[in-house]
Order: sequence, then C-alpha cells, then structure tokens
Amino acid sequence: MSLKLRIDGKTVDTPAVWWDDAANDVRMINQIKIPFQVEVHSCSTYRDTAKAIKEMIIRGAPSIGAAAAYGLAQAVQEFWNQDAFVEHIKSAYNELMAARPTAVDLKNGLDFVKKYDQLNPKAALNRAKIFANRIANEGLKIGQIGKELIVSNMNVLTHCHTGALALVDNGSALAPLIQAWEEGKRFHVYVDETRPRIQGRMTAWELSQYGVDHTVICDSASGFFMSQGKIDLIILGADRVVRNGDIANKIGTYNLAVLANHHNIPFYTAFPTSTFDSSTRTGNDIIIEYRDANEVKQALGYSNTLMKNQIVSLYAEGEEFSNPAFDITPNNLITGYITPYGILSQSQLEKTFINRTSQ
Amino acid sequence: MSLKLRIDGKTVDTPAVWWDDAANDVRMINQIKIPFQVEVHSCSTYRDTAKAIKEMIIRGAPSIGAAAAYGLAQAVQEFWNQDAFVEHIKSAYNELMAARPTAVDLKNGLDFVKKYDQLNPKAALNRAKIFANRIANEGLKIGQIGKELIVSNMNVLTHCHTGALALVDNGSALAPLIQAWEEGKRFHVYVDETRPRIQGRMTAWELSQYGVDHTVICDSASGFFMSQGKIDLIILGADRVVRNGDIANKIGTYNLAVLANHHNIPFYTAFPTSTFDSSTRTGNDIIIEYRDANEVKQALGYSNTLMKNQIVSLYAEGEEFSNPAFDITPNNLITGYITPYGILSQSQLEKTFINRTSQ
Repeated sequence: MSLKLRIDGKTVDTPAVWWDDAANDVRMINQIKIPFQVEVHSCSTYRDTAKAIKEMIIRGAPSIGAAAAYGLAQAVQEFWNQDAFVEHIKSAYNELMAARPTAVDLKNGLDFVKKYDQLNPKAALNRAKIFANRIANEGLKIGQIGKELIVSNMNVLTHCHTGALALVDNGSALAPLIQAWEEGKRFHVYVDETRPRIQGRMTAWELSQYGVDHTVICDSASGFFMSQGKIDLIILGADRVVRNGDIANKIGTYNLAVLANHHNIPFYTAFPTSTFDSSTRTGNDIIIEYRDANEVKQALGYSNTLMKNQIVSLYAEGEEFSNPAFDITPNNLITGYITPYGILSQSQLEKTFINRTSQ
Repeated sequence: MSLKLRIDGKTVDTPAVWWDDAANDVRMINQIKIPFQVEVHSCSTYRDTAKAIKEMIIRGAPSIGAAAAYGLAQAVQEFWNQDAFVEHIKSAYNELMAARPTAVDLKNGLDFVKKYDQLNPKAALNRAKIFANRIANEGLKIGQIGKELIVSNMNVLTHCHTGALALVDNGSALAPLIQAWEEGKRFHVYVDETRPRIQGRMTAWELSQYGVDHTVICDSASGFFMSQGKIDLIILGADRVVRNGDIANKIGTYNLAVLANHHNIPFYTAFPTSTFDSSTRTGNDIIIEYRDANEVKQALGYSNTLMKNQIVSLYAEGEEFSNPAFDITPNNLITGYITPYGILSQSQLEKTFINRTSQ
C-alpha cells in the first residue's frame, strides 16, 4: 500500500523519505508543497537534512526520525577520515537533535545509528536504512491490527496527518483506515483541519489517493459533530508516548480527548516503536515546543488568480500569537494504543515497549 | 466608548451600522475588510442591505438585527405609495429574514419595525433607529454589569467577535473587558482564531483599539491553555439564546463549554435583549446554518508582496467540506448570562426576557 504519486508526469511508488543510492543523498517528498505540488526535495549534506526537518519539509514524528537517522549517516560520510571525527559527529548529532524538540523518534533514530560500534559510512547508512524500513513495516502492522476497530457505516474522526508521508510509508493512524477501506469496508472519515499548519489537507489528500470517503471540518466543529452522534471513533497518531501512557501530539488532540470522554466515544492513538519514549515517565515531563508566531499569523495556500502558492497574512500587523505545537493527553482519556504489538491497554504499554525502542 | 477608527485619514467615532440622513441610505463598516482596511459600505436599497447581511459585510447577531431593521425601513421608503405596498413589504421582510438563518436578532429587528401600526417611511425609520440605539445602549450596560467578573491579573478567553462592530456599538462579550480595562484593571485576553472566517482577527483588532493586552491562539489550543491553568474565565457572545437557556453561538463554543466544564472554569455568555428568542423552547429546536464550503477551503488574507487582499485555497481541488457555522451549548454548561438586566442564572432567564424582545 505504498504511496502512489505523480511526480514529473510519472506515477511512482514512493516512501516519504529515502536514501538515493545513485545520487548518494537523502530525498523526501516536500510536505510544505502538498497538496498543491508533488516535489522531491534533495539533501546532499547532514545540514541540509537538519534544515529540512526544522523547516517542516519533512513532518510526522516517525518520518522525522528516519530523516534524522539518514542525516547522521550523511555526517559520518562527510567527516569520515577527517580530524576530530568524533567531535564532528557529536556536533552533527546535536544539530539534528535540535531540529525539532518534541518527536522522540528523532532521538531514537539518531541513537539507533550512533550506538552501532563500528561507526563507518557503510554501517551507519545500513543502520539508517534498517531504522527507516522498520518504521514503514510497522505502519503495515499497525494497519492490520487497527483495522479491526473499523466497521462499515462508521464515522471516524482523525486529527493532523498520520499517513504514509508522516511514517516513512503506510501511515500510523491512517493505516487502519486505508487497509479497512481496501478490504471493502465502507465508512466515512472526518478530517480535522489542524490549524495552524493545516495538516488536514495532507490527510485529505492522502485519503483521496486511496479513494477513502472523507470530509474536512474546522477544528472547532469536532464537538458539534460528536453532539450530533456523527462520530463513532477517534483515531489519531502521537508525537511521543511516555511510560505511563500519556501522549504528546499535535495541538488539539487534548481538546478531542476531553470531548470524546464527554460523549463516551472511543479514543485511540496509533504509533510505531520509535515514538515510544522509555526515558520519560509522565506527560508532565514533556517540554512543549512553541513554534513561530507566523505559523498562526499567516497561511500558505494556492492562488487561482496568480496560479502559484502564496503566503497571506491573516491578521493585522503587530498582533501577538502563542503557538504551542503540541499538547499532552493524559492516559485516562485514551481508550487504547494501536501498536505493531497489538491494541494495548495503558497497563500493557510500558512492559511491551521497554527495551524495544533502540534495538 | 464608541469605536474610534481611521477612515479616509480621519479619526471618526462610528457605530457598526447607521442610517446616513444626508445620503438617505444605510451605512456600515465593511467587516470583510477588517483588519486590513477600514472602509464604509453603503446600501441604497433594501436589497443591498440584505446582500450585505448575506455576504457577511455586516456580522454579529445584534448588528445584523439593526441592519435588517434599517433594511425594512428602506423597503417602506422604496415601496411607499406604490401598488401592492403590503405585498412588497412582506416580500422584503422575507428576503431580509432569509439573509442569515441563525441570528434571532434579525427577526426581532424586522418585527420591531413591522409591528408598528402606522407603517410609513418616517415611522419605520424611526423604529429602526430606536432598535439600533437600544442595542448599542445595552452594550454599555452589559459592560457595566459584566466588568465585575474581571479582576486584575486574570486570564480571560474569548471566541469569535463580540465587539462594537458586532453589536452596533460597545460590544457584548468584549464590553466587560474593555470597560474593566478602562477602569484600570490589568489582565490578559486569549483570543480564539475562530476558523473558518477568522473573526478572532476582528476581536484582536478591536482590543488593540482600546489597548487591551491580548494574544491570539488557534481554536484547538484552548484545552492546552486551560490544562496549564492559564484560563480563569471564559466570556463569549451568543447568536441566539432560547427559553431554557441553551445558546446557539459560533462553531467552537460548545467545545469550549465542555472543556471549561472539565476544568471547572467559569463560562459566561453576554448578549442584548434582541438575541433572546422567546419563541423557541430548547436548543434542539434551533436549525443550524451550514455555510458555503469555500469558507473552510479558502482564506482571505493580505499579501505583503502584492500589497493587497488575496483569497488563497488551502486545500486541493475536489476536497469536500462540512461547515456548520454555529453549535448549540446546553444550559448546564453555562455558568451565567451577562445581560442588560444583570448576571442571570438559567432559572432567572425566561422570566426576565419574556415579552421584552419586541417591545
């Protein structure tokens, strides 16, 4: 179920991020341009890769982790046989690590490459590829396991973007929906817009690739649809899952969890191994990333009159904004955790994941 | 505390909508252009006025009501001494009534003009002016009464736009904030963006006119700020208040009410007499207005490169949207009702308002 895209006039089967052996660089679908253009972005140095992560050309915690793993492999290539190799790698590790603060996948990806004893170019690249492939395969498993929650005629709500582009391939929260659809189940997906970055348009676009029936709604309309009995199930991803089962995920997740709880609607999070943070005990220990005010102040869209992408300012000059990119949803609001190891309860979570994340 | 604006280079003291005696037409601040330009929109016929309501050049339930009252007075002028006067007026009434379905102020405004026995041009215009002035004066009273809820160092959250532009003058939910600020109380206002039409930018802009300290946040961030203890009070308006105290208000109000309830945060709605719907018993009887998909699909902003307003498409072509403009918040989630007659409990509401709306 790899993502099929039209790039430069050809249909290609592509993951979200990959190593191009011929060009010897890191490539990724430029997620800033989705859904208006499908373009491949190339990173020839680890700094390019760190920049792509920071600027959200690549998004979704697991895809970020894979990109970072490739980035560290690039650094090993770049500094191999140079003076102060170890210092350079340390500095590259820190630079990649600082590109986004919330996704633990980023640290897991870097550590997966770094911990390998013989840190040479070939080995490092090999480790990065293993890390990326494992995430993609886990997406498939998450789909197989999670699709059992979907029954025909159901209405499912999702938030942010958790498709193939976010998970190297196959998706996390979208994987159960796409696999259930491909099995012939027929249901409807409500797609939250997910301001400020409007990742809902990527979700809508990916669901369109597979023909899954869906409607986009404003983030603030979720409670209305719940109160009307139009939401039977909520599935979304996670940017970080900590030991007690609290999750950090895209801003708005907590609103949905409280509303779901109020309406007795099952609320599931789906994520691969790399998203589990075995070093953090509870959600209180997660530091929330505040992103640039311009993300709220502005919107990037497509101008039909100019026939190109345009950034417009939505507010008067001089206004101030607060832009927390994530929020924390406590474990008591989460019905279950859809993982490659099954649909887990909060009590099964820690013992299932501990020691798995960096293997 | 009338709104002071710069129009054509001059500072003017203006309501949101008024009758221009010299030009003999209805004028209003074009709310679509706020905050990018301050422009006056003129309506020389009742049809122009109906169109301005429909296209949201004028917004905010009480301002809509006043505009509709002026519109009916225009129709009386237009058809006075013509054949089939009564039929023409009926048809104009229906046309104005259909311009927006949710705001009961619209019906109240029309009925306030229509019910007058001697429906002649002078009398109709006089009634319309009385209706508009009464709303503006009620905004002042709402401010005086509601400001007691505000104490220094508090953080207040508001949703949509409830300032002078929405209430002919003075504001509903913003009036207590502005009056408390002018008395010297110092506090902070979190302004919800309020997608899809981003009325938060009008709220931010109006608060800026009075120097009230504020920050804009995404609609989906409200729960996060509540969970962080950063919201002490929620005040917002209402598009319709029915007899049992349920309210229809801008989409997202219900989300805030459920979240406020979960966090034990006081939740108030502020509104004038014209917003009370004495003919509807409960929120279940309110028909929700679904507005055009393009409101969600697109955003109107200002392009700094083009130096003009631009509409951009935020989604791929072919996507579908569901755009309920309002939601229903049940009375059990509302702490109190800030009215010109005091801060009322649910049980005081009906007996306070009944028979007042069309007097």
